[in-house]
Amino acid sequence: MRTDADNVLALAIEVEGDGAALRLVSEAVAALGARITWISILDAQAPVETIAIEIATSRPATHIVDALAGLDGVRSVETNHPHRHVFGKRIVIIGGGSQVGQVVVGAVSEADRHNLRGERISVDTIPLVGERQIAEAVLATARLPRVEAVVLAGALMGGEIERSVRTVQAKGLLVISLNMAGSVPDAADLVVTDPVQAGVMAVMAVAKTAEFDVRRLGSRRF
Amino acid sequence: MRTDADNVLALAIEVEGDGAALRLVSEAVAALGARITWISILDAQAPVETIAIEIATSRPATHIVDALAGLDGVRSVETNHPHRHVFGKRIVIIGGGSQVGQVVVGAVSEADRHNLRGERISVDTIPLVGERQIAEAVLATARLPRVEAVVLAGALMGGEIERSVRTVQAKGLLVISLNMAGSVPDAADLVVTDPVQAGVMAVMAVAKTAEFDVRRLGSRRF
Repeated sequence: MRTDADNVLALAIEVEGDGAALRLVSEAVAALGARITWISILDAQAPVETIAIEIATSRPATHIVDALAGLDGVRSVETNHPHRHVFGKRIVIIGGGSQVGQVVVGAVSEADRHNLRGERISVDTIPLVGERQIAEAVLATARLPRVEAVVLAGALMGGEIERSVRTVQAKGLLVISLNMAGSVPDAADLVVTDPVQAGVMAVMAVAKTAEFDVRRLGSRRF
Repeated sequence: MRTDADNVLALAIEVEGDGAALRLVSEAVAALGARITWISILDAQAPVETIAIEIATSRPATHIVDALAGLDGVRSVETNHPHRHVFGKRIVIIGGGSQVGQVVVGAVSEADRHNLRGERISVDTIPLVGERQIAEAVLATARLPRVEAVVLAGALMGGEIERSVRTVQAKGLLVISLNMAGSVPDAADLVVTDPVQAGVMAVMAVAKTAEFDVRRLGSRRF
C-alpha cells in the first residue's frame, strides 16, 4: 500500500531543458531534507521542461519553494494541490467493455456519495481483451500511485490473470471479481454477481466514510 | 501534449531505502545518456524502496538493466511494460455523479471497440461537486501523464472552472463539455448534449483508429 505523508507539497517546476532537470531537482530536494513521493516529467523534449513533483517535508512551503526557485536553470516554481487531495484513492476497473461499463456506473455513483462527504475517490477504467493483456494491466496497477482496489469485470478470467491477482494482493491491493468462469473469482478478495453492486462495494471497501470492511465479512461471495 | 519516445523502457528498481534512491537512479540514468520520462516512487518509507521508472533510450535494454543492477544499494531491476503500452491515452471525466456515470458508459464502450483493434485508451473519472474543487481537478489533469482529453459532465459550470479549461487547452488538452448552464460550454472545444454520445465522441477524438478530427468539424455543438 502507498505511504501517506503528513505534510505533502506539490510543485510544478519549470527548468531549462538540458536533460539535467530531474537530477538538479532531486539533488536539491535531498539537500533540503525532503523526500520525493511522486514525480511526473511533462514535455521532456521541450526547451523548458516542467517537472511536477510531490514531496514530503516538515519545513514550511515557502522555504522549499524559495530554495528551488533560486537554483540555476529553474525558471519558475508553482505550488499546486497534491494529487492525493485532488483525485484521492483510485479504483481501477479492468475487463470487457460491457461489464466495465456497468461496474463503473455503480462505482461512480457510490464515489459521488462519498466525495460529497469530503472524501476523494476516483474510478479509472480500461476495457481490454486477452489473457496476457489483462494480466499485464492488473500487474501494472501496483505500479500506479494511489491505487487501492482493482475490479476484474469479465465473463472468463484465469491462468496468467489469476497469477497477477495474487501478485498485486501481496502488494496490498484489494481485488474484487465479478462472478465469472475461470480461476480469478477463487483468488479474489470479494466476488460479486451484479456489476453495479460490484462497483458500489469496491468504493465502500476503500472509503473511510463507509462502515464496510472486506476482511470482516462473513461471506466473500454476493 | 505529452512526448512520445521511440524506445521506452519500463523498470522497477528496488533500492535500499536510505532516502537517496531517487538521486542514485536519476544520476545513473543521466550518466547512461538516457532520459527519464516517468517515475513513481512506491513505499517510500519502506526499508527497500521501489522506484518504477520509464526511460527513453537508444541503448539496448540489457545494457541499461545491467548498469543499474550493478549500482551500490540496488537490490533488483525488473523490466515491465510501459504504462503507455498498458493503459495508453487517458480521458478524464469530471463532474456530477449522474452525468459522469453516463458519459463513462459511452466512453468505455467506444474505448472497448478501439482497444479491440489494437489501441490503448483508458477512461478515468472523478465525481466532484463545487466550483473550486472541479477547477482544481481540471488544472491537475494537465499534470497527469498521458491525459489527452477532459470531459466536463455537469449541469452548471463556469467561473474558475472556465479559467481552468482555458489553461489546460493552452497546454494541449482537448476539452469536451456537456450542453449545460454556465460559461464552460463557450470555452470547450466540443459541446455535446447527450452524455453517452459525449463519451463516445471523446474517445473518437483521441483514437488513432477513428476518422474523426475535432478541428475539422463544421459544428462544435451536438
